[in-house]
Amino acid sequence: MRIADLETPVPVIDLDRVEHNLTKMQAYCVHHGLRLRPHIKTHKIPAFAHRQLELGAHGITCQKLGEAEVMADAGLDDIFISYPLIGPAKALRLAELSRRAKISVGIDNSIALETIGEAARASNHAIGVLVEFDSGNKRTGVTSVAQALELARGIQKIPGLRFDGLMTYPSSAATVTFVAEAKRVFAEAGIAIAVVSGGGTPNAWAAHGIAGLTEVRVGTYIYHDRATVGSGAATLDECAFHLHTTVISRPTDDRAVIDAGSKSLSSDGIDPSFGKGYGLILGYEDAVIERLNEEHGIVDLSRCATKPVVGERLRVLPNHVCVVSNLHDEVAVSRDGELVDMWRVAARGKTR
Amino acid sequence: MRIADLETPVPVIDLDRVEHNLTKMQAYCVHHGLRLRPHIKTHKIPAFAHRQLELGAHGITCQKLGEAEVMADAGLDDIFISYPLIGPAKALRLAELSRRAKISVGIDNSIALETIGEAARASNHAIGVLVEFDSGNKRTGVTSVAQALELARGIQKIPGLRFDGLMTYPSSAATVTFVAEAKRVFAEAGIAIAVVSGGGTPNAWAAHGIAGLTEVRVGTYIYHDRATVGSGAATLDECAFHLHTTVISRPTDDRAVIDAGSKSLSSDGIDPSFGKGYGLILGYEDAVIERLNEEHGIVDLSRCATKPVVGERLRVLPNHVCVVSNLHDEVAVSRDGELVDMWRVAARGKTR
Repeated sequence: MRIADLETPVPVIDLDRVEHNLTKMQAYCVHHGLRLRPHIKTHKIPAFAHRQLELGAHGITCQKLGEAEVMADAGLDDIFISYPLIGPAKALRLAELSRRAKISVGIDNSIALETIGEAARASNHAIGVLVEFDSGNKRTGVTSVAQALELARGIQKIPGLRFDGLMTYPSSAATVTFVAEAKRVFAEAGIAIAVVSGGGTPNAWAAHGIAGLTEVRVGTYIYHDRATVGSGAATLDECAFHLHTTVISRPTDDRAVIDAGSKSLSSDGIDPSFGKGYGLILGYEDAVIERLNEEHGIVDLSRCATKPVVGERLRVLPNHVCVVSNLHDEVAVSRDGELVDMWRVAARGKTR
Repeated sequence: MRIADLETPVPVIDLDRVEHNLTKMQAYCVHHGLRLRPHIKTHKIPAFAHRQLELGAHGITCQKLGEAEVMADAGLDDIFISYPLIGPAKALRLAELSRRAKISVGIDNSIALETIGEAARASNHAIGVLVEFDSGNKRTGVTSVAQALELARGIQKIPGLRFDGLMTYPSSAATVTFVAEAKRVFAEAGIAIAVVSGGGTPNAWAAHGIAGLTEVRVGTYIYHDRATVGSGAATLDECAFHLHTTVISRPTDDRAVIDAGSKSLSSDGIDPSFGKGYGLILGYEDAVIERLNEEHGIVDLSRCATKPVVGERLRVLPNHVCVVSNLHDEVAVSRDGELVDMWRVAARGKTR
């Protein structure tokens, strides 16, 4: 079957661009003496995780236990879960997981610490722990070095847990300040910080400028999207993931409707300085996907010199590819414009 | 297992409220002599579709062929697809579907008409066709009665196709004007309009005021959500679908982070006159879910008198329940606060 014969909406991935993106980031990290621990939340596909390791990555990152379980099932054996796990059910699953892979987890509070301690007790396998700190994102993460130190001491007191270091997301100038103070305070306390893990594709190429960083966690770099292009982290030619869609209606001269709505593209918007609407239509860059319903993308063609007709297939670069990846059970993989295979997005929908 | 023991994030559905909502809408339609053809895009669960029929619904509505196929597999045998189908691959699937269920389809252009004609030829089974018109939503739908008449004549010329009438979404005052003119013009042309189908839960209780309407297509009414409550179509006590989530971090006094992000709640916003943020937290109505990442919901607690602690479980009423339903492989169904079962969302992710 040809790509043009696939029913739409369908995500199509260019394997050569993926390889380029993976190789480029790995080379950057090697060049700067940083370890790369890719986040699988973007692709959610074990074959890509294995390729990342083959190219030199030091383990992978998952956001949720359910993602880590899918990856462990596929033979991935060094997994960092960058997310606070809370409660006895998570402890049980973490214990089970730690029996079949080398596991580390990020925490920012004592309840999450208890959960991981419970898992280590139950499994009798060591679990690494990183303390998450806030670099200005105002999401999770402790806000002071004193809190980080208290958690590190708590980790050291629990049998089976190993304090591995610090993590943050995304890396920023504030990371440098926090890490410098932490190194001083932790040294005084006699605690070594082996790992300082930062992340985020938009600022990934500046990671070597973040003093103290030892590890880079990035996800989006495998595919790139409109946001990472807008941020300057990639070019349009490096984007490896496009949603193919069909024009299903042209009710007026200035309006097209495509068969990709929020169920295919997500409702994630875009920084206005990067562009307008819910994705960039290649070849019709002046068109604006101005509104999405679940199965309808309403496109404003008023600024277009030429306009697509009903039945025409369009390629859309998503605003935010990670959430789009999560919406599709499978993706088409291609090379040189030819369909290679359909791959299951095995860790899709693993919210728990 | 108790609901409180289910891992989060997890959607929990109250079966008594579902029954109340289904019964109430059915009674409304019966009272006003309207046929109810529920849209399954909200629940995507065959058992609920069967219950809707038992209560008196005249067939169901699906948005995509893939949804219709799941429902036909489950024995639903009268399906309206309210979406333009384009191209030979869709024609083949529609032909197959028309062999095992009574099928009708909405169209607004001649390419979609060709596709349905091809399906009817291939299957040798009659397919009903409704012409979609725009009632001011500026999405799909013809914008003039003349266009509708031309399509109706086209339908009549193709063997195997049956012109059933007109459809629109959502019903509005503009529906009345269009239908009145269409009735006059179609009568002159000797074409009967058997069905006038309108839809939309927010204005469903006003359907009897839309002169000419014969059928109501509604989906959200089964669960309701923050948007239908905001529009006045339901009360908070009628909402049957909540996302249960856990506080995983409390980095500052004014901030909580919950384990439900855009992968669980979607990024769909809310009309500012209905509320703020990405869902309403029951019991903490002054909290605002102000930002979502894929797995993080960042909650502003600054206006809260009492504040949830790490590990506490919260119930969130989604802004837009249809898209939330689509994000979860399964839902917990409950009665009187007790867990009854876990049900698969069988038509989830059917974008094609």
